Amino acid sequence: MDQMSILEKHAGLYTDMYQLSMAQAYFLDGRKNDSASFYYFYRKNPFSGAYVVFAGLYDLLQILEGLCFRKEDIEYLRENGFNHDFLQYLKDFRYRADIYSVKEGEIVFPNMPLVSVRGNIIETQLTETLLLNMLNLSSLIATKAARMRLVAGDDKILTDFGMRRAHGLGAIHASRATIVGGFNSTSNVFSAFTYDIKASGTMAHSFIQSYDDEITAFRRFAEAFPDKCIVLVDTYNTLNSGIPNAIRLAGEMEEKGQRLLGVRLDSGDLAYMSKMSRQMLDDAGLGYVKILASNQIDEHIIRSLRDQEAPIDAYGIGTSVLTGQPDAALDGVYKLAMASGKPRVKLSESVQKVTFPAVKQVHRFSNSSGEFMADAVSLWEEDPKQVTEIHHPFEKDKSLELHDWSSEPLLEKVMENGKALQKIQHPAESYKYLKKRLENLPDEYKRFENPHIYKVGLSTKLNEIRDVLINKFKKAKS
Amino acid sequence: MDQMSILEKHAGLYTDMYQLSMAQAYFLDGRKNDSASFYYFYRKNPFSGAYVVFAGLYDLLQILEGLCFRKEDIEYLRENGFNHDFLQYLKDFRYRADIYSVKEGEIVFPNMPLVSVRGNIIETQLTETLLLNMLNLSSLIATKAARMRLVAGDDKILTDFGMRRAHGLGAIHASRATIVGGFNSTSNVFSAFTYDIKASGTMAHSFIQSYDDEITAFRRFAEAFPDKCIVLVDTYNTLNSGIPNAIRLAGEMEEKGQRLLGVRLDSGDLAYMSKMSRQMLDDAGLGYVKILASNQIDEHIIRSLRDQEAPIDAYGIGTSVLTGQPDAALDGVYKLAMASGKPRVKLSESVQKVTFPAVKQVHRFSNSSGEFMADAVSLWEEDPKQVTEIHHPFEKDKSLELHDWSSEPLLEKVMENGKALQKIQHPAESYKYLKKRLENLPDEYKRFENPHIYKVGLSTKLNEIRDVLINKFKKAKS
Repeated sequence: MDQMSILEKHAGLYTDMYQLSMAQAYFLDGRKNDSASFYYFYRKNPFSGAYVVFAGLYDLLQILEGLCFRKEDIEYLRENGFNHDFLQYLKDFRYRADIYSVKEGEIVFPNMPLVSVRGNIIETQLTETLLLNMLNLSSLIATKAARMRLVAGDDKILTDFGMRRAHGLGAIHASRATIVGGFNSTSNVFSAFTYDIKASGTMAHSFIQSYDDEITAFRRFAEAFPDKCIVLVDTYNTLNSGIPNAIRLAGEMEEKGQRLLGVRLDSGDLAYMSKMSRQMLDDAGLGYVKILASNQIDEHIIRSLRDQEAPIDAYGIGTSVLTGQPDAALDGVYKLAMASGKPRVKLSESVQKVTFPAVKQVHRFSNSSGEFMADAVSLWEEDPKQVTEIHHPFEKDKSLELHDWSSEPLLEKVMENGKALQKIQHPAESYKYLKKRLENLPDEYKRFENPHIYKVGLSTKLNEIRDVLINKFKKAKS
Repeated sequence: MDQMSILEKHAGLYTDMYQLSMAQAYFLDGRKNDSASFYYFYRKNPFSGAYVVFAGLYDLLQILEGLCFRKEDIEYLRENGFNHDFLQYLKDFRYRADIYSVKEGEIVFPNMPLVSVRGNIIETQLTETLLLNMLNLSSLIATKAARMRLVAGDDKILTDFGMRRAHGLGAIHASRATIVGGFNSTSNVFSAFTYDIKASGTMAHSFIQSYDDEITAFRRFAEAFPDKCIVLVDTYNTLNSGIPNAIRLAGEMEEKGQRLLGVRLDSGDLAYMSKMSRQMLDDAGLGYVKILASNQIDEHIIRSLRDQEAPIDAYGIGTSVLTGQPDAALDGVYKLAMASGKPRVKLSESVQKVTFPAVKQVHRFSNSSGEFMADAVSLWEEDPKQVTEIHHPFEKDKSLELHDWSSEPLLEKVMENGKALQKIQHPAESYKYLKKRLENLPDEYKRFENPHIYKVGLSTKLNEIRDVLINKFKKAKS
């Protein structure tokens, strides 16, 4: 995974200034060996959906493994007024935390802990910005991609074409995340190289325009790529020029024992154009020529085209998948749960922002058909068999009985003492896991319009600890 | 500018696969020395605004200067079926194009050429993905930041806090772009280091929570940073705990000859909280303690707080500025204008997508008060004095007389033969330019609600050339 060379030079500086300020304050207060535990979660589902697909873990682990401060970094911080002794500490700093995480490709829900970081208070604090910067993006994009895969079905080819609209170098991670969500390939060669993803692409209008006529452009491209030739047919006029020329090209290729792979539609009414194109191709005996569609595709357009039975074999999807339109960000946060051996809580004017204290595990409960029913956030050491009821995290009177459902823990150790415990997983493997999990998620959570809200609650023990802490602080201030 | 080390290893692969495919097709067709010219423009203003602030030029130029294909890149492409002779060509490839661009910080409008790239057809084609990936993001973010600066006025401090929600490494460019739009500083240490921007930050809730009480946390932070101590006051209760503790801290600091710099409000009703906090601080003789506000700030919230006369001195702004919410992407495109000495046009089912052929210049016309009146897109060599009328690019019957307005050309040469002609500009310099330009932009283009549409049209000569080309293709296909 070569993209880490990107940050190897200054990964220590790839953070918010206040993380370093707080680290210095902890250090000067003699707390550098104090233990702490933070957890990562998000509050609001993007795309008006019911869930998020967790992604970005491997990018994060790899950067953390190499986290350090180079000489120039130290000099820079010195010029910015940091303390000499603290800078000596940073010079020798190595990341040594333990990290527990849900699997990449896991289906996750608001408020449940997705990652737990345990170590000394400085390293766990310094994890925050990097972790949020990596996981928020990849999880957002994997979720968006998964929505498209779900509605497209298994037999369509989905390709990421979004690099040109992606947020600069964020494209590197975003393209990978589309594969976690179920895409087949990417146009982004850098990510394809870095993560061993299939790279694919066709041709631009400029290629056609650079020739005096369309058929010449088609022929030249076919000569350069006889076994993977997909021609763009809408530069001048799709049905009067592009498709007739593609048919002519396909005939010429057949004479050489070659086959035209496909045509790409990039404008106009894709339902109508694909039907007309299919008919024209079929009438010419070219049933094998595939139709690829692009141009402002998102999950709603795919659904509409599916409902109209548009004969489209593959989609090239850009802006909407690689920027996560219309949401642009997952609101994931990283909050302190334990410090110096004590559970910690953050109060807030809005009850939804009160955090969950203590080191936690998440147990997913399923019914006898294997369907996911609810997730229980418990204390780390709690026996899930003892968790028979969960409590709504923000509405006091709501609770749910867990019946005799079976459970599985979701957080597993992925880093120990700063070393990743697993090999980097190929994003297609993460999608395999996601696909299996989606089979266990009831359909009402998958629909686009007002999906069912999945239940995530606190175990009775964790709920009590939280109440005690909240009351303690409320009393102290009243 | 150190961030280029990010891509130095594999900048050649940082592209869409089809750029390399087309390059091979051009190469195999013997066209490697054919000349071509492309231009960059966008179609739709983001944020329902009337303009975009152009940014990202220096990142782009620096990457293009170093663009090459390493041994591993060549090997990777070989494994992906690329042609041997073409790979030999890529091995020795150096970027040698000329680039003309509007200035960073320029106010620009839909459909006008912002960048023109001229060189051989392979290098100009290979520019596309990189250029769009860099300019679309930075221009989007600079535009968003400029909207906030405009409504906040000159005396407020605006700081980018968005790294945690930014799109992975896209944060690097995005944080810089906020400075182009008029922000003062960033929390992103990596960007601050790379681009020589002021880094700033306060403390997180976790810092407060990690101590048994709030006042101890405040004291420890003040000891670590006596001259830049800003305390976060909403962890438990802003008015009953945070502000009283900040006042206590400020008193203790005064005894040591120090001054508390500020308090940060991060939740609740910011108008109310800031007024109450200001009153309490003032009553305690702490008129010098500044109030910084954060939490879901955008230009509309800033306007609302300004209208309510909230006594806020500084804003920390995250997600909305660094992801460009709610738009997430600028729709900039890169289109062929000339190839092999001939002007080229792309037709389309939708008239708004028909491109402008030929190598072009943009002349901005201003009235005698210096106010911007309209932009004329002309042929490169046209004398602006001869351009007395401009034509609507898509509505045949609309034209505008340019009276006796004065004009200035907007595109200037910034790269020659693959070498940047200018030193990298500090983003604050780009903002200085923007500020000057905004003074010449009439107010009706600056308002948030239904702003006036700025007029961009074609010179009569360019319009005629376009019509001839369009008719030629229409005739050929009918």
